[in-house]
Amino acid sequence: MTTADDRPPAFPRGINLHGDDPQAMRRQLRAYFTSTFDRYESLFETLACDAAYYEHAIPLRHPLIFYFGHTATFFVNKLLLTHLIDERLDPRIESVFAVGVDEMSWDDLNEERYDWPSVAEVKAYRAKVRAMVTRLIDEAPLSLPIDWNHPWWAIVMGIEHERIHLETSSVLIRQHKLAYVKPHPHWRPCTEAGAAPDNSLVKIPAGSVVLGKDKSSPRYGWDNEYGRHEADVAAFQASRHLVSNQEFLTFVEAGGYSHPGYWEDEGKEWLDFTHAEHPSFWVPASNGWRLRLMTEEIPMPWNWPVETNYHEAKAFCRWKAASSGQPVRLPTEDEWQRLLDHAGQREVADRADHANLQLAHFASSCPVDRFAHGDFFDLTGNVWQWTETPIYPFEGFDVHPIYDDFTTPTFDGRHNLMKGGSWISCGNEAEPESRYAFRRHFFQHAGFRYVVSKELKHVPGSHYETDKLLSEYAEFHYGDSYFDVPNFPKALVDLAIDALGDTPRRKALDLGCASGRATFELARHFDLVTGIDFSARFIGQGVALARGESLRYTLVDEGELVQYKSRSLADLDLQDTAGKVEFFQGDACNLKPQFTDYDFIMAANLIDRLYQPARFLESVHERLNLGGMLMIASPYTWLTEHTPRADWLGGFKKDGENFGTLNGLKAVLGAHFEPVGEPCDVPFVIRETRHKFQHTLSEATFWKRVR
Amino acid sequence: MTTADDRPPAFPRGINLHGDDPQAMRRQLRAYFTSTFDRYESLFETLACDAAYYEHAIPLRHPLIFYFGHTATFFVNKLLLTHLIDERLDPRIESVFAVGVDEMSWDDLNEERYDWPSVAEVKAYRAKVRAMVTRLIDEAPLSLPIDWNHPWWAIVMGIEHERIHLETSSVLIRQHKLAYVKPHPHWRPCTEAGAAPDNSLVKIPAGSVVLGKDKSSPRYGWDNEYGRHEADVAAFQASRHLVSNQEFLTFVEAGGYSHPGYWEDEGKEWLDFTHAEHPSFWVPASNGWRLRLMTEEIPMPWNWPVETNYHEAKAFCRWKAASSGQPVRLPTEDEWQRLLDHAGQREVADRADHANLQLAHFASSCPVDRFAHGDFFDLTGNVWQWTETPIYPFEGFDVHPIYDDFTTPTFDGRHNLMKGGSWISCGNEAEPESRYAFRRHFFQHAGFRYVVSKELKHVPGSHYETDKLLSEYAEFHYGDSYFDVPNFPKALVDLAIDALGDTPRRKALDLGCASGRATFELARHFDLVTGIDFSARFIGQGVALARGESLRYTLVDEGELVQYKSRSLADLDLQDTAGKVEFFQGDACNLKPQFTDYDFIMAANLIDRLYQPARFLESVHERLNLGGMLMIASPYTWLTEHTPRADWLGGFKKDGENFGTLNGLKAVLGAHFEPVGEPCDVPFVIRETRHKFQHTLSEATFWKRVR
Repeated sequence: MTTADDRPPAFPRGINLHGDDPQAMRRQLRAYFTSTFDRYESLFETLACDAAYYEHAIPLRHPLIFYFGHTATFFVNKLLLTHLIDERLDPRIESVFAVGVDEMSWDDLNEERYDWPSVAEVKAYRAKVRAMVTRLIDEAPLSLPIDWNHPWWAIVMGIEHERIHLETSSVLIRQHKLAYVKPHPHWRPCTEAGAAPDNSLVKIPAGSVVLGKDKSSPRYGWDNEYGRHEADVAAFQASRHLVSNQEFLTFVEAGGYSHPGYWEDEGKEWLDFTHAEHPSFWVPASNGWRLRLMTEEIPMPWNWPVETNYHEAKAFCRWKAASSGQPVRLPTEDEWQRLLDHAGQREVADRADHANLQLAHFASSCPVDRFAHGDFFDLTGNVWQWTETPIYPFEGFDVHPIYDDFTTPTFDGRHNLMKGGSWISCGNEAEPESRYAFRRHFFQHAGFRYVVSKELKHVPGSHYETDKLLSEYAEFHYGDSYFDVPNFPKALVDLAIDALGDTPRRKALDLGCASGRATFELARHFDLVTGIDFSARFIGQGVALARGESLRYTLVDEGELVQYKSRSLADLDLQDTAGKVEFFQGDACNLKPQFTDYDFIMAANLIDRLYQPARFLESVHERLNLGGMLMIASPYTWLTEHTPRADWLGGFKKDGENFGTLNGLKAVLGAHFEPVGEPCDVPFVIRETRHKFQHTLSEATFWKRVR
Repeated sequence: MTTADDRPPAFPRGINLHGDDPQAMRRQLRAYFTSTFDRYESLFETLACDAAYYEHAIPLRHPLIFYFGHTATFFVNKLLLTHLIDERLDPRIESVFAVGVDEMSWDDLNEERYDWPSVAEVKAYRAKVRAMVTRLIDEAPLSLPIDWNHPWWAIVMGIEHERIHLETSSVLIRQHKLAYVKPHPHWRPCTEAGAAPDNSLVKIPAGSVVLGKDKSSPRYGWDNEYGRHEADVAAFQASRHLVSNQEFLTFVEAGGYSHPGYWEDEGKEWLDFTHAEHPSFWVPASNGWRLRLMTEEIPMPWNWPVETNYHEAKAFCRWKAASSGQPVRLPTEDEWQRLLDHAGQREVADRADHANLQLAHFASSCPVDRFAHGDFFDLTGNVWQWTETPIYPFEGFDVHPIYDDFTTPTFDGRHNLMKGGSWISCGNEAEPESRYAFRRHFFQHAGFRYVVSKELKHVPGSHYETDKLLSEYAEFHYGDSYFDVPNFPKALVDLAIDALGDTPRRKALDLGCASGRATFELARHFDLVTGIDFSARFIGQGVALARGESLRYTLVDEGELVQYKSRSLADLDLQDTAGKVEFFQGDACNLKPQFTDYDFIMAANLIDRLYQPARFLESVHERLNLGGMLMIASPYTWLTEHTPRADWLGGFKKDGENFGTLNGLKAVLGAHFEPVGEPCDVPFVIRETRHKFQHTLSEATFWKRVR
């Protein structure tokens, strides 16, 4: 037993940033900062010697000396960006400690060598940073509230960032050689252990969940928490307890690690690479299994939650499904939220006595039946719970300007969310709203709860389009205006609606629809609009939007620097058009027969990209009802790379005289069409970088089918 | 002898287009048109049979049937362009007769086959055109005066065009087989012949000439006649007579055609190809030389002017120079004008009795001592006179919108001017202002007069820049504004002058000057401005402008269609800066030592095109006086094709944070510079086609050298 003096000081649980008393806010923030900085330094006191700082705990991550310095440098970097400070404290040290945090992959080893500073140097550097941040908190001008755009957001970000590393460093220490660590009075594990309770399934009725934080929230949040996500969750069953070491042992003893059928492809690759035969923190010993904790090994506490990566958790579920005949799997993020709502446990994070969370009890897990939450145990705390859900951005997601790569690199379908927090998750980490995601082979203080459900919903797309052309077109169709030039597809549709007068508006065809904006705009006026493009990649953007997803893309600002953008139909008040559009991949020069009976056909920026424009124009009347209208808009940029010279419609001398594309259009379309009105130039702008744009005029003409 | 009835009707000599009586103008134009159309048709009556229309007179040009139809089709094509008519008369015939007029080269044979209409069909077609044009002249709305932009200009153009073909077709008939031609009462040659007079040299004192027609002139002119050219002409001597057949015989008999030393390279190539041994119209016969006229051969009239191409005339001069020891050559265009001025013969063309011109006397040449003009004979008329001058555009040259390829294809340094006209030159052809140029190997009714002079002036550049990048930059620097964006180099200089305040303005350096506009703009304010660019082709544009020449370039409108543009310093009120600039080719990353002691250095759109931008920035202070100012403007468009990734100044994450180019500039320049003022974006637009533009923002920053 420890005495009262041995216990670590109380650790604040987070902070309300909406106070209206600046002095009170300074006091609160100072305590929040100091306690975090202290607790982080005390964590490194569990290292037995200086060598422990420099030897890799695992080959995939930097040695601990990096993390010791990194959280301090992070303050400096972010404070520079919000101009709370003007100069670096130590450019050399800060260059060493700036980057390299990203979890590396087991299949992506990095053998770079670093010239690390000494532990004493880093301690001295941390003291300088501590003094600087403390002085800022005490003296820098402060207006309230502190929100997303506030310069002090960088201070809170620095603190929450250090709390994340408090946990991830504790994992590295747990993965270090036993000889490099030592017990510490502030980091004492739970001593209760015994046989595990039988697990059982609890029924959860169908219901809906709403996720996403509002920017007006008084609590700090990372970029990925903001926005909104609503979902209906079908009825399912969930295990009352987290899976214990004892329950997982059945899987190990059933040969689960050597049965490829239980493992998904990515899990099999991991297994082939690591030859794992049991959970990573399990230690086989002559007298049975033992468990590695942060600073010691103990006889296996069978009633503690097992700790696994996603692949192991998933394999357990597949084994259990096979043996039980039930659709066992991990919960989704929505289902975890539904559990929390159903159990009425949303506020659990703020109650110190109520969960093994926030370092409130132990420096380790504890029995899975210690903290009851409604019908369940450990809905939060003890260990993180893997989900089936790769992290994705909520509607309205936005990167934070001073940390644009906190989440975006993980929007790749390869980083799964863990929910609930562990015994060491503090501050933002411990909140139900927080959304941490890791590569699926990664280890944290993380285990799982399983569910039984036949349904597994499609996860919204998380991919940010980075292909230059596709992202430029996304912005061109759905993004911002530049040089005060109105949105081009919308301007064309406005022109068209004027020109159409009171002709029928049943079916319209947007040929060469690219990203599809005009297709949606036309659907404001027509019953059905078909968008066709040669490029399936472009079509994909319209399809995703019509499905209700956001179009996410990066825009180059300068060199490799990008900004992250996102647009949904609702942003453009086009949500009601989604049911009236259809998109197809197709070739305007060789269109399938079913595309016919249109009242209006638009061909915008198309004809000078066709390999046989005349072939298209000679047959387009077959698609159009008699009396229907054809609209052609083009900058007439003829290039042999798209259209053989012999197939240009104009832009050359013919019989000795200038023969423009408009002459060519009249000649080819004359057989079935009459021109309507005068040609007019419609401008458009395509953004290439923050400074560089294409600014083009597309000549719009209307042609009525008369024959 | 012919009777009065046999004589052709009187042939109007040209027309004053500035009358104020529309009915009188209609009468005059009708007579001008009808007489020209008649005379042209009568020319073809010298053909002996229909076969004569279809066999090539010379392989390098179309058969005569083409020319018979072509002048009629030309009316249709040009009247369509000025909208005096709306429809073609006969699309099939007009497609056949539209193009192919361009003289082809002896080294550029074209063996295309044509499906020619019958002579009767062409006659019927000509009758339709005649009726259409006559009706237009009688009935179309007419406001006076008829000038360059007037729709009726197309009518006058059609008539003058046919008068040109009257002459060129007469040459083809003269080159046709004798069996294919027959004498005609309207086309009777001169019958006077005898021994030639001795030629002698007449001294012309130095003087100046002014060439170029004004757009307000009441006479029709082709595009190349307009604008202005002033020149000082050094004293020279000129032969009193055109070179006669007799005088040329000495050269032939001296073996001139087989002596390569007398021939220029291009002349030697022509000689190798043709194996010519005497003038083209000379016919060797058993009883001595004979001369081919249009419809007959006659015994050699020794006192008529010899007819040669430029190469033969030039070889004669080189032979004569070699044998006389004097600098004998052909006159330049300026010298021919000086002759005319000196002899007071500018108005000679209007006087029917005064020259063998305008078909006023014969359908052939006549003796070289028949028509005296002051101290000379045949300053105009008899045969054309080759000059040393390749045709080039006068200052202010502009293409005519309905005939943009009348002259521009001949601005290639390979087409030499002929002056003075021949016995068949009528209307515009007969005017001293007219400027006809042909390939130097080409035959017309053309001979020469020689001059003796040590000087041969540089001919102004005639080249139209068609290279995409160079012509786009010419327009970018010196051309028009688009989207209301002010001229970029000028805007930068205005910004710079503001920023410089009252600092010294002795020497400025425009580094990466490209086409040089900012160099000239800076020279409004500095005593000396150095423009340096990596590209000698760009430098060439500034050098030409500083030399007083115009920058001529084509701009793509659409596909292959271009417009012709020209700019001089005077157009931009920069003519006074020419003496204060110097241009050098150089590498900003490795500048020669002499470029130093500047008060101001501008580097616009440069740094992101350098292969080692830091190397440039680290040493640029060495070029700048202490207290001097450096201006950098750049869109920061970093591309690995210009700058290796490792050498970018910014535009990437550094130590985990966004590091923009401005950060990079501060870091590199900090050692010697302090930033002045705030960065500002200066827009620029580069025109690619009539519809397509690059629209870019260049961030301008100022840096004062303080160390």
